[in-house]
Amino acid sequence: MIRFECDYNEGAHERILQRLMETNMEQTSGYGTDAHCERARTLIRQACGNEGADVHFLVGGTQTNTTVIASILRPHQGVIAAVSGHIAVHETGAIEATGHKVLTVPSLDGKITAAQVKAVYDAHVQESSPEHSVQPGMVYISQPTENGTMYSKAELEAIYEVSRACELPFFIDGARLGYALASKACDMTLADLACLCDVFYIGGTKIGALMGEAVVIVNDALKRDFRYIIKQKGGLLAKGRLLGIQFETLFEDGLYLEISKHAVDMAVRIHDTLEQHGVEFLYSSPTNQQFPILPDALLQQLSSQYTFTFWEKVDTSRSAVRFCTSWATRQENVDALTRDIVRLLQGNEGQDEPVAVFQTAATV
Amino acid sequence: MIRFECDYNEGAHERILQRLMETNMEQTSGYGTDAHCERARTLIRQACGNEGADVHFLVGGTQTNTTVIASILRPHQGVIAAVSGHIAVHETGAIEATGHKVLTVPSLDGKITAAQVKAVYDAHVQESSPEHSVQPGMVYISQPTENGTMYSKAELEAIYEVSRACELPFFIDGARLGYALASKACDMTLADLACLCDVFYIGGTKIGALMGEAVVIVNDALKRDFRYIIKQKGGLLAKGRLLGIQFETLFEDGLYLEISKHAVDMAVRIHDTLEQHGVEFLYSSPTNQQFPILPDALLQQLSSQYTFTFWEKVDTSRSAVRFCTSWATRQENVDALTRDIVRLLQGNEGQDEPVAVFQTAATV
Amino acid sequence: MIRFECDYNEGAHERILQRLMETNMEQTSGYGTDAHCERARTLIRQACGNEGADVHFLVGGTQTNTTVIASILRPHQGVIAAVSGHIAVHETGAIEATGHKVLTVPSLDGKITAAQVKAVYDAHVQESSPEHSVQPGMVYISQPTENGTMYSKAELEAIYEVSRACELPFFIDGARLGYALASKACDMTLADLACLCDVFYIGGTKIGALMGEAVVIVNDALKRDFRYIIKQKGGLLAKGRLLGIQFETLFEDGLYLEISKHAVDMAVRIHDTLEQHGVEFLYSSPTNQQFPILPDALLQQLSSQYTFTFWEKVDTSRSAVRFCTSWATRQENVDALTRDIVRLLQGNEGQDEPVAVFQTAATV
Amino acid sequence: MIRFECDYNEGAHERILQRLMETNMEQTSGYGTDAHCERARTLIRQACGNEGADVHFLVGGTQTNTTVIASILRPHQGVIAAVSGHIAVHETGAIEATGHKVLTVPSLDGKITAAQVKAVYDAHVQESSPEHSVQPGMVYISQPTENGTMYSKAELEAIYEVSRACELPFFIDGARLGYALASKACDMTLADLACLCDVFYIGGTKIGALMGEAVVIVNDALKRDFRYIIKQKGGLLAKGRLLGIQFETLFEDGLYLEISKHAVDMAVRIHDTLEQHGVEFLYSSPTNQQFPILPDALLQQLSSQYTFTFWEKVDTSRSAVRFCTSWATRQENVDALTRDIVRLLQGNEGQDEPVAVFQTAATV
Repeated sequence: MIRFECDYNEGAHERILQRLMETNMEQTSGYGTDAHCERARTLIRQACGNEGADVHFLVGGTQTNTTVIASILRPHQGVIAAVSGHIAVHETGAIEATGHKVLTVPSLDGKITAAQVKAVYDAHVQESSPEHSVQPGMVYISQPTENGTMYSKAELEAIYEVSRACELPFFIDGARLGYALASKACDMTLADLACLCDVFYIGGTKIGALMGEAVVIVNDALKRDFRYIIKQKGGLLAKGRLLGIQFETLFEDGLYLEISKHAVDMAVRIHDTLEQHGVEFLYSSPTNQQFPILPDALLQQLSSQYTFTFWEKVDTSRSAVRFCTSWATRQENVDALTRDIVRLLQGNEGQDEPVAVFQTAATV
Repeated sequence: MIRFECDYNEGAHERILQRLMETNMEQTSGYGTDAHCERARTLIRQACGNEGADVHFLVGGTQTNTTVIASILRPHQGVIAAVSGHIAVHETGAIEATGHKVLTVPSLDGKITAAQVKAVYDAHVQESSPEHSVQPGMVYISQPTENGTMYSKAELEAIYEVSRACELPFFIDGARLGYALASKACDMTLADLACLCDVFYIGGTKIGALMGEAVVIVNDALKRDFRYIIKQKGGLLAKGRLLGIQFETLFEDGLYLEISKHAVDMAVRIHDTLEQHGVEFLYSSPTNQQFPILPDALLQQLSSQYTFTFWEKVDTSRSAVRFCTSWATRQENVDALTRDIVRLLQGNEGQDEPVAVFQTAATV
Repeated sequence: MIRFECDYNEGAHERILQRLMETNMEQTSGYGTDAHCERARTLIRQACGNEGADVHFLVGGTQTNTTVIASILRPHQGVIAAVSGHIAVHETGAIEATGHKVLTVPSLDGKITAAQVKAVYDAHVQESSPEHSVQPGMVYISQPTENGTMYSKAELEAIYEVSRACELPFFIDGARLGYALASKACDMTLADLACLCDVFYIGGTKIGALMGEAVVIVNDALKRDFRYIIKQKGGLLAKGRLLGIQFETLFEDGLYLEISKHAVDMAVRIHDTLEQHGVEFLYSSPTNQQFPILPDALLQQLSSQYTFTFWEKVDTSRSAVRFCTSWATRQENVDALTRDIVRLLQGNEGQDEPVAVFQTAATV
Repeated sequence: MIRFECDYNEGAHERILQRLMETNMEQTSGYGTDAHCERARTLIRQACGNEGADVHFLVGGTQTNTTVIASILRPHQGVIAAVSGHIAVHETGAIEATGHKVLTVPSLDGKITAAQVKAVYDAHVQESSPEHSVQPGMVYISQPTENGTMYSKAELEAIYEVSRACELPFFIDGARLGYALASKACDMTLADLACLCDVFYIGGTKIGALMGEAVVIVNDALKRDFRYIIKQKGGLLAKGRLLGIQFETLFEDGLYLEISKHAVDMAVRIHDTLEQHGVEFLYSSPTNQQFPILPDALLQQLSSQYTFTFWEKVDTSRSAVRFCTSWATRQENVDALTRDIVRLLQGNEGQDEPVAVFQTAATV
């Protein structure tokens, strides 16, 4: 079975494992106070072009989103997010479990607009008795989105401008940030992005690390006591060095972007090959997730050799599915996949009976 | 200014005030353990035709919804509700503040269906990794709804059947319950309703009492330790007798339904008079809330003498507004209102320029 | 049965009921936006000598404590309180239910000291890894305390000074505030107290009102969005006028202090009579709660005609109990009580076998 | 600098790193559904002698405690724990953040007794109005405790018996479980312990793993939907295999107990050497933590070459400190430590001026 259902099917980049081996018997203090974490922080600050940013290392994405959001909102406030945002659908109510509503706005491709943010804000303040509903307290987006789509620099600028005007801290979930930055379609650097929000995180779990997310707090007002919140929410790793060593490795020689680029190249290869054979796509994704629309019969056959994620039924005989590539994806597997799809497409011509499908989109 | 913007503009029914005066210097124990509360519980059990039900008195609606829901759900569960349900929009995230997501389903008129409940349940259990999203844990509806509409007995039966099949406790918010039961369109009694859910409450605040809601727990599995949750959520009134005395009064001679019927009669009088003059309505409400669609210019003029609630823009020159009647509404005021509307309608013929509006629907 | 077990055994002062009758059919807007609430706010601001204070009306004490504390603390912070503080023992974990730990300090008589507050603060900041424990975020005391004792002006000044130095908002629970201010031993006015804390509340439930507590926010930094928190925590009464009318009545002619003084006079009468007959007291209380130590056999007999609260076993044959007086206590009942105790004391001389006791101190 | 301040100063046991290398490019499904996790579960079930137990892997201790406790308690319930329990003091209020009070009982050495549990339970149910205080809902202990002490089999049996009689689920925090089981003083096996509680966890972070704790749920009633709670609390590791591989390694050849025994041997070596030189100890610990009482002047000198944790001042010139050993502790370092202490003790004879100390006990 060759796996494309997510971008965390393998362990870690070999250089990271190598560093873990080399440093294994070093004695360090705990909880992220060691020299590796300190160096990783410095490297990340440099990559962000912001010497004053606070950098914290957490273990996973849900934990990171919960920690950042809980650290910002007052009890009566909610977080604005796309209806398809990870915090809205795939975190088992982690945000609500800290007392806060996710204020969802419609989105067809995973992105939201500055105008939508403004509209939510305006609708609330124009209520005659606003205290009877949840007050918008911050804005959350993912770059790239859960659908593989990407914000342009101008789009981020617009959201950030509205956010500041409305006094709503702007938080960017970068679980797959490298896969946006390494895309040919991307018109921003990490340093650009760090100027366009109040806080964001750089995902490691999905990009080469065993686990780990680096939160970068740009806005001074959000820095106070953040370590308390990490600890309370269960995210302060005892052997914090493990996160420091990994991000040190990812950021010391450009490894983070280098392996991200590989993943995007592999995804584009899937996209271009299928498109040449007339396949349509649900979203226009320039990143590491691709959402082709394929006949259910074909998917049924394909699933005996490949894993992928069912996304949604498109019509009575076709579904959109998701293929993910990652830093670890082998070109030979990509080529096998596209070759088999093309072969099945040609064999299936004329067929279109609907078949049962496989796996719903719960874990993405 | 004559007020129709809500059903809690006045104090309490005079018989209630009379009883409060008569009993004022009686010495009783606190927190609902007194003889008045006990007698009120007995009267309510009788009216519900259920001698074994637990009856608890709380102060207000948001508090009651929060307390009931928090007493039922485990941390990873959410409550299914209409997108327009009171808990979803007008309680400042009180449910989320106890850690639970409101799982909203679409509704045009405030009602949801058994099929919708089943669909939410099925969609969840059919996910490949259901633990990544909030588990549906109970069902919430309002009878009548926030839009004045009403469930039929058959509709409640259907929801209750699905709820039991899915092991989802079924909770009915009866903040305006009397205004449903007293409607000519209603095909159920209080005793019928008590057989069609696991827990519900009988609203007093909006129907004759100074304040107070009577929670009736029918399902034994939901009874345990409920008083702890009331106390923790701030709803255990020290002078609990105040609630006991009020519900005693409302339920000893049929006063609750009698004054509810008056409110509905007044609402129907508004509806029928306006309908005769060609006015359309946003919802088909047989209860104490009426939602006529009127020209903005007319509403602007009307607002100098009457209060009402802006509901939504219907087109460029007309809006739907809400008029509420209550146990305290005077027929002379109703007649003045409809007379003025009809007069303005006739005067406004030909006009339709849009005007600014007044009051949004935040507090309902 | 004559009741002394708490200070909320009766309804409300007759002048309050009178005003509720007179205003009953007035139509007002909801949720505390009416003219009665506005006038009550003005009267309270005047009594506090602070025209800029924010005044909000809530229904009960647990709700008020929860709302104030939740509005102030960030998620990782706790509230410093006496181990016997109401929030620490008698609110079913309401503070914890909003996510916050109560950081208790020892107290023999219900009071805490400025030095204790400073010590908690210092111990925390001197930890090598303070983020591993809850950060002190505010200070809570009750005036008078749950044991009837009272802070002097100098003691409050000292706590307030430390609180400001440590940036810990200082909150005074005044559920029985009148019974402190009306005590002969009290060296402060309401206006004095309003200068010695950041936020406090004036209790109505236990002093003449049907229910209701008036929160006074002195510190500007704590005012923002307080109504949202009230609503979310279930404390925004629909017919807010009921609270406004009651506080209007209590504060328009000095009624609040007048009826408080009566309660304290009755308590002192109990104290002095018993003391003359050699009875010892658990706490030195100059307010409306008295804690005599009496033989268990006597208490057993007394309980057939009077209610009171068991407080604690003092030795094998004696217990401390609590007698509360209130605005409604009749002198004839006080005199009957002390006469019967004295009679039993004289009859019981020589007896001292232990007997089972009655009622624990859960609800105070 | 040689480190003894905690038991997580190094990386992981080399066999674990070896396995991570070997399996690195295997493709597996996420979130603990892979074959390594499945095999680790089987090995742990076998070691526990309980084929039916549920086994789940989480990342860290605070997260694990929070997840287990939140999965068990209803909103009005609290968890009984020693006043020195990890959840009571060193988790930044994580338990309170999920809404629950920690009901602390006194302890001098970190242990609590069955009689204390019974007393808390009895005191609560005997209250006249128990619903005004938090209901005891479960029991938490640590084996070994935070002070290095250990429960005997008879002590656990007694607590478990009381817990069942009071319907309080009994949870054992085993963050350092191996260091108890490997102690010569221990009279129980892992399989014994698994019969003496409802749920416990086997710590990996402090015993050879990079990170990871294995929760073992013995009681069927506690199994339902546990994965939802893990996910919501941020503990469901995307690359769950990392935890599976580590516990597979620790449990396939007895490695867990083997490396635990090494740590205990090293600790005993410290203990015995110091005791021979007349050093007293704060607690009688047969496990990997030792708490000698030493002159402050000596500690000051020692701290230039060794790290350890300040525990508490014992008198004006002496303090108790903590030395931890672990699976990774080298005997040469232990011998250097004791040699230097003994040397300083002999040199310091006659001296006893107090000095400032170093590091408080926040992170343990």
